[in-house]
Amino acid sequence: MGSWKYARPIFLWKDDLMFQKELEDYARLVDSYLAQFPWPTGTLTESMNYSLSAGGKRIRPVLALAAAHAVGGEGEDILPAVCALELIHTYSLIHDDLPAMDNDDYRRGRLANHKVFGEGQAILAGDALLTYAFELLAQPMSGVDSQRQLRAVREVAQAAGPEGMVGGQMLDLEAEEKQLNLAELERVHRLKTGAILVVAARLGAILAGGTEEKIEALTRYAQAIGLAFQIKDDILDLESDSETLGKPAHSDLRQHKSTYPSLMGLAGAKLELKIKTDEAHAALTVLGERAVFLHELADYIAQRKY
Amino acid sequence: MGSWKYARPIFLWKDDLMFQKELEDYARLVDSYLAQFPWPTGTLTESMNYSLSAGGKRIRPVLALAAAHAVGGEGEDILPAVCALELIHTYSLIHDDLPAMDNDDYRRGRLANHKVFGEGQAILAGDALLTYAFELLAQPMSGVDSQRQLRAVREVAQAAGPEGMVGGQMLDLEAEEKQLNLAELERVHRLKTGAILVVAARLGAILAGGTEEKIEALTRYAQAIGLAFQIKDDILDLESDSETLGKPAHSDLRQHKSTYPSLMGLAGAKLELKIKTDEAHAALTVLGERAVFLHELADYIAQRKY
Repeated sequence: MGSWKYARPIFLWKDDLMFQKELEDYARLVDSYLAQFPWPTGTLTESMNYSLSAGGKRIRPVLALAAAHAVGGEGEDILPAVCALELIHTYSLIHDDLPAMDNDDYRRGRLANHKVFGEGQAILAGDALLTYAFELLAQPMSGVDSQRQLRAVREVAQAAGPEGMVGGQMLDLEAEEKQLNLAELERVHRLKTGAILVVAARLGAILAGGTEEKIEALTRYAQAIGLAFQIKDDILDLESDSETLGKPAHSDLRQHKSTYPSLMGLAGAKLELKIKTDEAHAALTVLGERAVFLHELADYIAQRKY
Repeated sequence: MGSWKYARPIFLWKDDLMFQKELEDYARLVDSYLAQFPWPTGTLTESMNYSLSAGGKRIRPVLALAAAHAVGGEGEDILPAVCALELIHTYSLIHDDLPAMDNDDYRRGRLANHKVFGEGQAILAGDALLTYAFELLAQPMSGVDSQRQLRAVREVAQAAGPEGMVGGQMLDLEAEEKQLNLAELERVHRLKTGAILVVAARLGAILAGGTEEKIEALTRYAQAIGLAFQIKDDILDLESDSETLGKPAHSDLRQHKSTYPSLMGLAGAKLELKIKTDEAHAALTVLGERAVFLHELADYIAQRKY
């Protein structure tokens, strides 16, 4: 998708294959780190690993690594902190799927954690992943200033906590079967999924020593792609089929959920997606050539098929 | 209770009233800090506060403050980190009480969180308390070295996570209706309740700038009072009545739980309590006069009526 308001500098054009390879390289780096945790053997570890190894796009750690690169750092050193974001994401999925929450039996085509290990065990696996995430965030990381690292811990906790993700999940729980207006819908998304994406970008930039100006630029970028991601999700649910998506299509309609298309119409949602994608590109200006991957990532989110 | 193997120096004798007052002063300091969190209004905050304000002995923050004092520090500066321990303890109680876990409808004489707010909400309140605890642990605290603070974050996460409290809770869940031997019972206690008590003492000492020798001494002290606490709990369940305890007496017997008295006999459990209390006193030697309160706390745990 080309940008319409903000032209992208010519040097940013790269072919899609190269982007795909970089995306996979980042994800592989994350996966290899995730595979080597020295957890004790037992049901708890099995249950944590079951959900952690279920795949997914690793979008949060990838975003953090790309943000670190964009401000001039390299990713290997900050892998523990970056992977903590995937643990937090995974814990939130495990708890979301519980009978007392969204009551989903399947996740990414496999049985949900609580269907395999039991509800009590799933609650504990989520608790353990969340807690271990903070152990990772506080790991010694070479070349990272300890004041900045403490700030990163604090910001991740804030983004994941009552004023962020958990707060959004509570709003979502309370909004079941209720029609939301656009402002309310955006608030749920901003808290439930947006806050962690934003902190992923900030975390990478903070740990890699980025300036406040660059941290703020990445914040605006992540806010924009966070909403773009959600709008695209809503559009795909409407326009795609279950086989392509790997999950039931048209489920928003069946569940009478408020979505961008239901509130703005399909054309309105597509326009909004374009606006958010353009905002994402624009936010990156200050980062120059080191942000190539992030430009491609914004397009990828808007163009993905599932 | 006097010490039989290790005589306590004469200057440590203080009257019980003075200890009670100090205990209350510490707890009041904690309560006043807990009462002023700037959480957003709504069900989530209500639910978090419901459990957080349910009282309890505040033993973990008190232990941390006393440990900080024992190594030469003062407590006010490290209150955020110290109170994080109470949030972690409270989250663990909320999740423990859930139907999928211990299925308790009451806690400290009040309805359990999930009975008042619903299961999904209780899961989220626990998640939010745990997450906010790490925000507190990473707060700027005047006079605290940031390397030490990161170590404290890491140690608390480790003590609360899969190799600590959550791991112990999983063992406990798997041990239901199963007879444990003494080694297994101690392992459950060491992980489920001991790890957080130990890290409370370490946290106070680490943040207040204590030497490794003093941190280790406080570790041994906390290990001993942790087990003493559990042994005393088991003895009280057997010897006391429901009115005094504020919870049903003889419940271990009814639930066929493995306890110290069931595995060592009542006399054996009382001897073990004395041994652990003596170990606690002995561990404090290196701390001298600044550990007066901790000596009294060990006796208080062994002598308490509920």
